[in-house]
Amino acid sequence: MTLDVAILAAGKGSRMKSNLPKVLHKIAGTPMVQHVLNTAKELPGAKLHLIVGHEGEKVSAECQNFSANIVWQDNPQGTGDALRRVAPHLQVHGSTLTLYGDVPLIQASTLNAMTALSSPNSLVLLTIKLENPMGYGRIVRNDQGQVIAITEQKDASAKELLINEVNTGILLAPNKHLQKWLAALSNNNAQGEYYLTDIIAMAAQDGVEIVTVHPENEAEVSGVNDRIQLAALEREWQQQQARVLMENGASLLDPTRIDIRGELSTGQDVVIDINCIFEGKVVLGDNVEIGANCHLKDCQIGDGTILKSHTLIEDSVIGKHCDIGPFARLRPGTQLADKAKIGNFVETKKAIIGEGSKVNHLSYIGDTRMGAGVNVGAGTITCNYDGMHKHLTQVADNVFIGSNSSLVAPVRIGEGATVAAGSTVTRDVEANQLVLARSRQTQKDNWVRAAKKS
Amino acid sequence: MTLDVAILAAGKGSRMKSNLPKVLHKIAGTPMVQHVLNTAKELPGAKLHLIVGHEGEKVSAECQNFSANIVWQDNPQGTGDALRRVAPHLQVHGSTLTLYGDVPLIQASTLNAMTALSSPNSLVLLTIKLENPMGYGRIVRNDQGQVIAITEQKDASAKELLINEVNTGILLAPNKHLQKWLAALSNNNAQGEYYLTDIIAMAAQDGVEIVTVHPENEAEVSGVNDRIQLAALEREWQQQQARVLMENGASLLDPTRIDIRGELSTGQDVVIDINCIFEGKVVLGDNVEIGANCHLKDCQIGDGTILKSHTLIEDSVIGKHCDIGPFARLRPGTQLADKAKIGNFVETKKAIIGEGSKVNHLSYIGDTRMGAGVNVGAGTITCNYDGMHKHLTQVADNVFIGSNSSLVAPVRIGEGATVAAGSTVTRDVEANQLVLARSRQTQKDNWVRAAKKS
Amino acid sequence: MTLDVAILAAGKGSRMKSNLPKVLHKIAGTPMVQHVLNTAKELPGAKLHLIVGHEGEKVSAECQNFSANIVWQDNPQGTGDALRRVAPHLQVHGSTLTLYGDVPLIQASTLNAMTALSSPNSLVLLTIKLENPMGYGRIVRNDQGQVIAITEQKDASAKELLINEVNTGILLAPNKHLQKWLAALSNNNAQGEYYLTDIIAMAAQDGVEIVTVHPENEAEVSGVNDRIQLAALEREWQQQQARVLMENGASLLDPTRIDIRGELSTGQDVVIDINCIFEGKVVLGDNVEIGANCHLKDCQIGDGTILKSHTLIEDSVIGKHCDIGPFARLRPGTQLADKAKIGNFVETKKAIIGEGSKVNHLSYIGDTRMGAGVNVGAGTITCNYDGMHKHLTQVADNVFIGSNSSLVAPVRIGEGATVAAGSTVTRDVEANQLVLARSRQTQKDNWVRAAKKS
Repeated sequence: MTLDVAILAAGKGSRMKSNLPKVLHKIAGTPMVQHVLNTAKELPGAKLHLIVGHEGEKVSAECQNFSANIVWQDNPQGTGDALRRVAPHLQVHGSTLTLYGDVPLIQASTLNAMTALSSPNSLVLLTIKLENPMGYGRIVRNDQGQVIAITEQKDASAKELLINEVNTGILLAPNKHLQKWLAALSNNNAQGEYYLTDIIAMAAQDGVEIVTVHPENEAEVSGVNDRIQLAALEREWQQQQARVLMENGASLLDPTRIDIRGELSTGQDVVIDINCIFEGKVVLGDNVEIGANCHLKDCQIGDGTILKSHTLIEDSVIGKHCDIGPFARLRPGTQLADKAKIGNFVETKKAIIGEGSKVNHLSYIGDTRMGAGVNVGAGTITCNYDGMHKHLTQVADNVFIGSNSSLVAPVRIGEGATVAAGSTVTRDVEANQLVLARSRQTQKDNWVRAAKKS
Repeated sequence: MTLDVAILAAGKGSRMKSNLPKVLHKIAGTPMVQHVLNTAKELPGAKLHLIVGHEGEKVSAECQNFSANIVWQDNPQGTGDALRRVAPHLQVHGSTLTLYGDVPLIQASTLNAMTALSSPNSLVLLTIKLENPMGYGRIVRNDQGQVIAITEQKDASAKELLINEVNTGILLAPNKHLQKWLAALSNNNAQGEYYLTDIIAMAAQDGVEIVTVHPENEAEVSGVNDRIQLAALEREWQQQQARVLMENGASLLDPTRIDIRGELSTGQDVVIDINCIFEGKVVLGDNVEIGANCHLKDCQIGDGTILKSHTLIEDSVIGKHCDIGPFARLRPGTQLADKAKIGNFVETKKAIIGEGSKVNHLSYIGDTRMGAGVNVGAGTITCNYDGMHKHLTQVADNVFIGSNSSLVAPVRIGEGATVAAGSTVTRDVEANQLVLARSRQTQKDNWVRAAKKS
Repeated sequence: MTLDVAILAAGKGSRMKSNLPKVLHKIAGTPMVQHVLNTAKELPGAKLHLIVGHEGEKVSAECQNFSANIVWQDNPQGTGDALRRVAPHLQVHGSTLTLYGDVPLIQASTLNAMTALSSPNSLVLLTIKLENPMGYGRIVRNDQGQVIAITEQKDASAKELLINEVNTGILLAPNKHLQKWLAALSNNNAQGEYYLTDIIAMAAQDGVEIVTVHPENEAEVSGVNDRIQLAALEREWQQQQARVLMENGASLLDPTRIDIRGELSTGQDVVIDINCIFEGKVVLGDNVEIGANCHLKDCQIGDGTILKSHTLIEDSVIGKHCDIGPFARLRPGTQLADKAKIGNFVETKKAIIGEGSKVNHLSYIGDTRMGAGVNVGAGTITCNYDGMHKHLTQVADNVFIGSNSSLVAPVRIGEGATVAAGSTVTRDVEANQLVLARSRQTQKDNWVRAAKKS
C-alpha cells in the first residue's frame, strides 16, 4: 500500500507559555511529535512528512531519527495551507493520512482501521461522539446517513448544534482527489486561513464516499494546547501503561501512582509499590519486588531481586536474588552478581560487585571491581579521584573491609584480606593479610569538654 | 447459633497470570482469602470450611492460623460442586453461609444482617442493584415481590435483562434443605458444572422463603479475576481505611495517598502527610506528625514525636517528643527514649538510645546501648561486626563522640567521656576521659596535585 | 466604600475530634480562618471583625497579624447571636459581610461581585444551585423571581424540597437595616438559637431587595465539619494551585500529586515531577527542573538548576545551573553559587559554597564558607560542634579535600591546598600545601579473621 502521512508540527503553541515549540513538549518523557511519528511509522508502507514552522530546526533536529521528509510551513495559514505545502511531495497514487504533532495519543489500531477502508474513491474521516460537542465541527449526515459536510460551531444551525458526532481533524484522502481539493481551497474567511476541513464538502460534491471511523477512546484524538491538557494526556498515557502492565500480570499497588517513561517489561509475579518511576528500557525478571518511590532507568533486574523503597538505579545490570536499598543509589556502570546486597545510603558507580558481596551502609563504591563474598563495612569510601583522574579499586574474593575505611585508588586488596576499621589503605594488600592504618588510642583523664574551648 | 461458613478458594485464577493461586494475592498486604476468613471468624458461632483445590497446600498453609476445616475440591466443577464437597462436614442444624476467597471486602455487618434473617425455612440471599447489571444473574421476583429465580444473562428475556438487581453469589441456606438441594443439583449444562445458584429455584419450589439483603457498598461483593480488579479493590480498601482514620480524628493531607497494610491506631491530633505507608501494627500517640514518604512497620511512636519526611521505622519503640528524620532508617530493635533525635542518613539497628541523645547525621548505630544526653557526631560508625559475630557498643550518659569516629565493638565509653573527631576507638574509655586515636597532622608545601600522579 | 466583615470563628468543631479549635485546622499549611482573613482583607475598605469563642485566645493569637477587631461570643447561640455581638462594633453606614472561619475557600472575586451589588436598600445573598440540595436551606422565590424566604429542609414543603438553589450563609446586608433585623431576631425555636437566616424574611417584609450572587465553584462555599471535609478542601485547594501553575506555563507531571503550602512562583519552562511539596515562599527560575519527591521551603532556585529526586531544601538560596541531589538535604543558611553541585547523602547547613564547587557524596558541611572550584571527597565531615559551640570551617578556592576527611573547626584550608584522604585536620592548612593526618599502613600476614575473636 502506498501511504503518505502528513504530520502537522508547525505551530508555536502560545498557550504553553514556553520557549519550546509545542510539539516538543513531552508525554512520558518523549516529545509529543515523536509519539505521533512512532505510531505513524508502524503503518505499513508509510512515508512520513513532517510539516515544521515555528522553531522548525529544533523540531526537525529532535525528529531526525525518523527520517521523515521535512516540509517547511513558514507564515502558516491553517491546516489546509500545511497540506498544500506537502502536496508537491505526495506520491501519485495512494492516500494521505493527516495527523497532528499535538495530538499525541492516536493509536496505530485506529489508523489501521482507517487505512483498511481506504480506496481511490473514498475519504476516511475519524470522528467521535462526545457528550459535550460544544466548540467542535459537527458531522452532518443526510437521511441515508452519509456524511455531507462538517459544520463549525459558529456556523451551525440549532439543529446541527445537537449533533454530537464531531470532526477530529484526522483524515485519509486519496491523493489524486486530494491534490485537486487542496488546490481549490480558499482562504476567503475571517481568519484568512485555508481549512483542510473544507475538502469534506468537496469530496461530497465529487461523489467521493465519506466513510467514518471512531477511535477507541477520546484521548486518542485529544489535542494539547496548554499545560493542563498536556498533564491530562500524560495521566491518560500513564493509565494506559498501568493497565497493560496489570493485564500482563504485574501487581501495581496503585495504578494511579506509577510513571512509565519508556519501555518497562515485567516477568511473572512482579510487584510494584506506589510512586515508582521507570525511564528508558527497564527489564524486571520474575518475582521482582519494587518498593515505594523507586526510580529505575535503563536497567535490568534479575529474578527474585528485591528493591526496597527509595532505590535509584541507572544504566546498571542487577543479578538474581539481590537485595537493594532502601536509600540506595546505583549509578551507571554498576553490575551486581547474584545475591549481592546494597544497603542504605550507599552509592555505587562503575562498580562490579561479585556474588553475595555486601555493601550495607553509608558507603561510596566507585570505579571498583569487587569479588564474591566480600563484606564492606559501614562508612567505607573508595577514593577514586585524585582531582584529575579516576582510579580503580580492586577487591578480591572474601575480603573483609572494616567500617569507616578509605581505599585510596589505585589499590588492590588480595583475597581473604582484612582491612581494620578506620584504616586508610594507600598501598596494595596481599591475600589473607590484616592491614591496619590507624593510630594507637591515647587518652587524657578528667577532660573538661566545652569549657576548655570557650 | 449454629453457622457453617463455606469459603470457596479452589480456583486458579488464570487471568492473574500468576504462579500464585488467586486467593493468595494480597489486598493491603494480606492474602484475599485471609480477609474473608478474618471477616467470617467475627460471625458468632461460625465454623469455617475452606474449600481448596489449585495449589491447595499453599492456600491451606497460608490459612492454618484460622483452624478452618480444609475441604479439597479436586477437579472442580463449579460452585455447586464445591458445596457438595463441604456437605458431609456441615452440622445437622443451623445454616451455611457461602463466601468466596476472591471476594475479599465483604463486611461482617452485612453478613450479620444476613444471619439475623436466618431461619430453618428461609434462604437469605445477598443481592445488589447495579447501574449496569450486564453479565450478572438477575433476581427475578413475582408480583408480590418474592424472589422466584435467578436468571443468568444468557438465559434472560428482554424484560428480565432490564432488572438491575443481581445475584452476588453470597447466600445463607438452612442445612437441612441445603443438603437436599445440593444432592439434587445437576451438571446437565453446557459447562458441565454444578451451579449453586440453582438451589434458589429449588427453594422457591419447596416454599422456602427467599429473603434478600443488600451490602452497604458495591466493593463488598466485587470479585477479583485479574490484577486490574485486584488493584481496584486495593484502592477501595485504602479509601475505607483513610475514611476511618479521619473519622477518628487524624488529619490526612491526602486521603488518596496513604496505604494502611495492617492496623494503624492514632492518638489525638495526629497529622499524616502524603504517601506514607503503614504495615503491621503501628500505634501513633497524640500529636504525632508523620512527614511525607514515611514507611512505618510494627512500631509505636510516643506523643508529640515528629517524623520528618522519608523516615523508615521497623520493629521499634519510639518515645515521646522525639525528632526523627528526614532520611532516617530505624531498623528492628531500635528503642528511643523521650526527646531523642535521629537525623538524616542515619541507620540504627538493635540500638537503645537514651533520653535526649542525638545522632544527627550520617551514622550507623547498631548493637548499641547508649545513655542519655549523648551527642554522636556526623559520620560515626559502630563497628559491630567482625565478619563472624556481632558485638555490643556501650555508651554511657553525657558522652560526646566526635565526628567520623569508629567505635570498634565490643567497647564501652564511660560517662562523660569525649571521643576526638576522626578516632577509631578499639579499647574501653573511662569516664570523663578524652580519647584520641588519630594521627598528627603533617604537611608538604607546594604540593602539585594531579600532575604528580599522572 | 464602608465595609464591615464579620468572620464567625467561635465554634469548637466537635466532629474534628481535636484539641485545636476547628478554625485553626489547616488547609495548605495555613489555618482555615487565616484563609478567610486573607481573602477578606483584599476587599477594598474592609474592616475585619473576628468573632471568637471556644479557645478564643488561641484563635485570636493565631490571627493577630490581621489586626481584626476581636469580638467574643461566649455561650454561643447561633449565627444570629454572633452577629448580635458584632452589632455594637459596626459602622453606621455601609454594609456588613458575614463570612465563616470554617468556609475557607471563598474567593475575593465572588465577594467583590457581592459588594458591587451592595446598596443601602438591598441585601446581597450568596446562593448556589446544587445537584443534591438535601439538608440545605432552600431559596424560595416568588413568581417574579424575587427571593422571599429561605426555608430550612425540615420546614420545607414537598414543592420547596425540589428547589435546588440553596443558601450558603454568606450575605451582605446594609448596616442600618441589619441593626434593626438583628435586634428583632428571636431564639424561639427548638434549638433556642438565633438564626442569621431569619433576616431574609425580614428584609423581604421591609421591601429591601434581595439580590443573589453565585460563587464560581462549590468549594468556595463548602464548610468543614470533620477531617474528611478538611481533606476534601485541601485537595480542592491543591487542584486550584496546580491549575494556576500550569496556566502560568509550568509543566506538572501529575497535577494531582503536588502540594503547594504557601507561595510558589515559577519561571519559564519549569518542570515539576511527581509528589513535590512546596512550603512558604519558593521562587523557581527559568528552566528549573524539580525531580520527584522534593520538598522545598522558603528558598530560591536559580535558572537552569536541576534538583534530582528526594532533595530537601529549606531557607536557602541556590544559584544558576546547579546540580543537586538526589537524597540531598540543604538546611537553613545554605547558599550555593552558580554551577555548584551537591550530591547524594549530603547535608549542608549554614554553608556558603562557591561557584562550581562539588560536594558529591555522603558529607556533612555545616558552618562553612567554601570558595570556588573546591572538590570535597566522599565522606567528608566538617566537625563544627564541640559540645558547646559551633565553629566555622573556611575552605579557600580550588582546594581538594580527600575522601573520609574530618575538618575540625575552627579551621582554614588555604587556596589550592590538598587534604589527603582519611585525614583529620585540626590545624589551619596553608595555600598549596598537602596535608596528611593519617597513619602509616601496617600489616599482619596470614590473619585468621573471625576465629581469632571467637
